[in-house]
Amino acid sequence: MSIRIGIYGYGNLGKGVELAIGQNPDLTAVGVFTRRAPETVKTLTGLPVYPADEAIKMQKEIDVMILCGGSAFDLPEQTPYLARYFNVVDSFDTHAKIPQHAAAVDAAATGAKTTALISAGWDPGMFSLNRLYASAILPCGNDYTFWGKGVSQGHSDAVRRVEGVQDARQYTIPVQAALDAVRAGENPVLQTAEKHERVCYVVAKEGADKAKIEREIKTMPNYFADYHTTVYFITQEELDRDHAGLPHGGFVIRSGATGKNGEHKHVIEYSLKLDSNAEFTSSVLVSCARAAYRLNQEGVYGCKTLFDIPPAYLSAKSREELLVTML
Amino acid sequence: MSIRIGIYGYGNLGKGVELAIGQNPDLTAVGVFTRRAPETVKTLTGLPVYPADEAIKMQKEIDVMILCGGSAFDLPEQTPYLARYFNVVDSFDTHAKIPQHAAAVDAAATGAKTTALISAGWDPGMFSLNRLYASAILPCGNDYTFWGKGVSQGHSDAVRRVEGVQDARQYTIPVQAALDAVRAGENPVLQTAEKHERVCYVVAKEGADKAKIEREIKTMPNYFADYHTTVYFITQEELDRDHAGLPHGGFVIRSGATGKNGEHKHVIEYSLKLDSNAEFTSSVLVSCARAAYRLNQEGVYGCKTLFDIPPAYLSAKSREELLVTML
Repeated sequence: MSIRIGIYGYGNLGKGVELAIGQNPDLTAVGVFTRRAPETVKTLTGLPVYPADEAIKMQKEIDVMILCGGSAFDLPEQTPYLARYFNVVDSFDTHAKIPQHAAAVDAAATGAKTTALISAGWDPGMFSLNRLYASAILPCGNDYTFWGKGVSQGHSDAVRRVEGVQDARQYTIPVQAALDAVRAGENPVLQTAEKHERVCYVVAKEGADKAKIEREIKTMPNYFADYHTTVYFITQEELDRDHAGLPHGGFVIRSGATGKNGEHKHVIEYSLKLDSNAEFTSSVLVSCARAAYRLNQEGVYGCKTLFDIPPAYLSAKSREELLVTML
Repeated sequence: MSIRIGIYGYGNLGKGVELAIGQNPDLTAVGVFTRRAPETVKTLTGLPVYPADEAIKMQKEIDVMILCGGSAFDLPEQTPYLARYFNVVDSFDTHAKIPQHAAAVDAAATGAKTTALISAGWDPGMFSLNRLYASAILPCGNDYTFWGKGVSQGHSDAVRRVEGVQDARQYTIPVQAALDAVRAGENPVLQTAEKHERVCYVVAKEGADKAKIEREIKTMPNYFADYHTTVYFITQEELDRDHAGLPHGGFVIRSGATGKNGEHKHVIEYSLKLDSNAEFTSSVLVSCARAAYRLNQEGVYGCKTLFDIPPAYLSAKSREELLVTML
């Protein structure tokens, strides 16, 4: 019997979930829930579209609701609310507010005997898992997380707000020398700004002062001032042609030591190179929906994260099949 | 309260376990169990040494027994036997025989209400986990496992058995072009011999026919004949000086696609670079001992693998601390 999935929110993430479900024969997409007028939304695979506020009428038709809204405004309200009615999965990614979000979701899910898996994706998500595993294995060591090469939407927006800028795209790029030092087991002490550089592709409005734009970007506090930042001016055509995608990725590296006097060094490295940030996150959400459903079937309720999920629960394969093919 | 660990077998792995326990303040090593005469064994940290056949008298003093024997002869007998008395962890690594080993251990552990975690290490172990996670997230894709650069003890032994060879060390090395093709998302079809090359450092006996030795190595069936193999003749001094360590490592890569027509490629890569194969494996075993103990405390009995373990159970940190520091 197929696990029936609802998709709550239909931006890049919701579309990615719709497509990812199609790659998993044991899952079925029931429909999309949107706050827009349903008749104005056309889904990629012809899924039915329902008004968001009618979702709870469909409790009996949906095994897991995947929430595809944003972490700033949508999920802090939606996840606790929907966890009262459904098993849910979200990608809440405001790291500092995770404990608070977890507590609100846990109260809702425990009361309703649903299972809620939050903060699934790649960071938080797969990167978090790798930080945990690596530090559990090598307690004497250091963790390093590098992001990129990838598009930061927040930084791209910040550049677009500079006077005279028509359009822009910002890439976060790991500093190669820092990566090399970490991989060599040198255990350097590195601030975020020492691990990453920023490259901006900017389309200036006609007649705009490019030198002034560049200066304003490079001195922008928090976003760019602390970083090595490079600004390239290009045409709108070039931006549309060469920078339309939303790739991302990064590296989680743990460098640790064992032996009587720490004489043996070990480096554990996990990396992602993603053509589509949203579609990869969606793929994680979909495998987590399977796990949330299974946990719920076993009577495990409340708020969970990937830290709590036996890995086998994410896979469509049976435990026996996994032993033979994966172990 | 500290988790009390017994170490069953005292070769490289047992010594690594002894040292790894010292890196984990929540664990205590109780002692070493050996089939040798206890008075002939001196432990690295002054742990007491007991005869192996008195282990079961110490049931009350030991929370988890870590088995440090070999997969060929020791573990198939020892793990099911000791699981009748203790929570156990082993590193059984004969991939083809895992289901059979799991069944024997499960019968023993279920009956005795103990928890047995088998096949912990890096392959099987961390590599297996990464194959599972990556394939669950990207069901449309291909898996690649590369081993090395590292010393293969089995291949080193095979070279030592060649007539005229005094000593030898064999390194397994991933083929760079194959790694590059996989990382580029080209999804090549590769046999083991196309992914790895073999390099042998050989000390010839005085007056031995080096050309004959090289020919015999390179044409040895199963071990070398299918591989690109390079043989270097060096002196015993050079071998002892430059090749004394037992480094190993490798790569698990999944290359997958998402999107309406698979237009977005994603590459997930996990790699290990280990100065000491045995000490890293020991470090995995020790974190698994913590997980086995916790599962047993919760009433989860029987044979488990890393696929069944919620990742948080491996860490000394509390769930709350993990949410704040790792997620």
